Amino acid sequence: MLTERSARIATARKLTRRSGRDDAGAFLAEGRQAVSEALAEAQDDPGAVLELFVTEAAAAAHRDLLAAARVPVHVATDRAVASLSETVTPQGLVAVCALRDVPAETLVTDPPRLAVALAELADPGNAGTVLRTADACGARTVVFGAGSADPYNGKVVRSSAGSLFHVDVVRSAPLAELVPQVQAAGMTVLAADGGGEVALDAAAHDGLLAAPVLWLFGNEARGLDPALAALADARVRIPMRGRAESLNLSVAASICLYATQLAP
Amino acid sequence: MLTERSARIATARKLTRRSGRDDAGAFLAEGRQAVSEALAEAQDDPGAVLELFVTEAAAAAHRDLLAAARVPVHVATDRAVASLSETVTPQGLVAVCALRDVPAETLVTDPPRLAVALAELADPGNAGTVLRTADACGARTVVFGAGSADPYNGKVVRSSAGSLFHVDVVRSAPLAELVPQVQAAGMTVLAADGGGEVALDAAAHDGLLAAPVLWLFGNEARGLDPALAALADARVRIPMRGRAESLNLSVAASICLYATQLAP
Repeated sequence: MLTERSARIATARKLTRRSGRDDAGAFLAEGRQAVSEALAEAQDDPGAVLELFVTEAAAAAHRDLLAAARVPVHVATDRAVASLSETVTPQGLVAVCALRDVPAETLVTDPPRLAVALAELADPGNAGTVLRTADACGARTVVFGAGSADPYNGKVVRSSAGSLFHVDVVRSAPLAELVPQVQAAGMTVLAADGGGEVALDAAAHDGLLAAPVLWLFGNEARGLDPALAALADARVRIPMRGRAESLNLSVAASICLYATQLAP
Repeated sequence: MLTERSARIATARKLTRRSGRDDAGAFLAEGRQAVSEALAEAQDDPGAVLELFVTEAAAAAHRDLLAAARVPVHVATDRAVASLSETVTPQGLVAVCALRDVPAETLVTDPPRLAVALAELADPGNAGTVLRTADACGARTVVFGAGSADPYNGKVVRSSAGSLFHVDVVRSAPLAELVPQVQAAGMTVLAADGGGEVALDAAAHDGLLAAPVLWLFGNEARGLDPALAALADARVRIPMRGRAESLNLSVAASICLYATQLAP
């Protein structure tokens, strides 16, 4: 049984840091939901999952899942598996997965009906939540702009609730260069902006949300960089009836994406 | 200058626990945004804020705010004010506020156009985010059902971003008793339910979201208790186009509330 000091565990532990993920070309997905999504992915793409680490208890609890896995399964001590985990109550089940991001050019060569770009969105929990909502609303691509949380950060993976494995992810994209390119490819680029000139309901009514659309969402505290927002086809605000000054970032993104999903 | 060991600080520190808040009839609001909302409230209701604790640095940084405050302001050490804080980077500014919840009967005697009820919603961050979104969407009342996070929990106060001071809050309400009463008072009660029989866009189209409406939102992991959901006039699901199985609770609530805000 592997322990915290085993070389294989020490190697995997490097994937809890961004530099370690970049060096190895791999990341960690923990818990039943993420691991089962990763293994489903590996059915089509055998290189998607490299290996699994499980505690004895998790091996027993997830026997069905592990029996179908066509990757090496290593049993390790509770403490060893916990050392790969970023949760308070680890589930004892961690997959080492190959980085799966796609080049930003895919947005230009084959524009999706709906895509999302995160501009300096800092909080991993917010980033994962937006990824999950984007998936639910039918987005094909989520672009993590330079300065945003890393899509392979453990908290992003966890709060995406498996959606990291459903959508195309673009990593570290230079958004100011990408926006004019996707516009030239026919996409409407919309900036979510509390001070925007178009209200979301008016945008829906006027056909501005018709596919293909790329939404830009900014930083939780500072919002979108004005220079980037200025590149968009429109800056869209969510109309608010009450006294709250603003919405939580992932909430605002969700409302924009749901409204877009409803558009023809 | 007060220190961690001063009796006044020790007394205030009891408000970081629910039992302490119940005993004293008071809670803590920290940071510039929450404190300024609390002081605005105190303009109309002089008993709303009991006292303020500030560090020397915060006293200098928020001189404008404190000069207008008509409540005792106590300067305390950084460590003393931090001992009242639940954030990693305290802002050095904490208000002791009177509990401000209203009786559940106000929903019956004077039904609001829009209200929200949280049924066993456990995570304080989610509860605060829903409170903020409810405020933004024009809800007058947010009911925290028995078993939900406490509206005066420090994380709820913080993630509500001031909205705790904008809406009427009902605490520890027995929802199974309240739902038939508000229905008798003329409100439509809608249960947010991933397996609901009505899609949100159909509900909007069919006039089901017309005021007055009370939305029920359930637990993050278990959803709504089926017995409670069965009491609602309809169970409403958010249509999803992608592969995500569900939405984050605060995201789902936000989409429902935004759709309701748009209804005539």
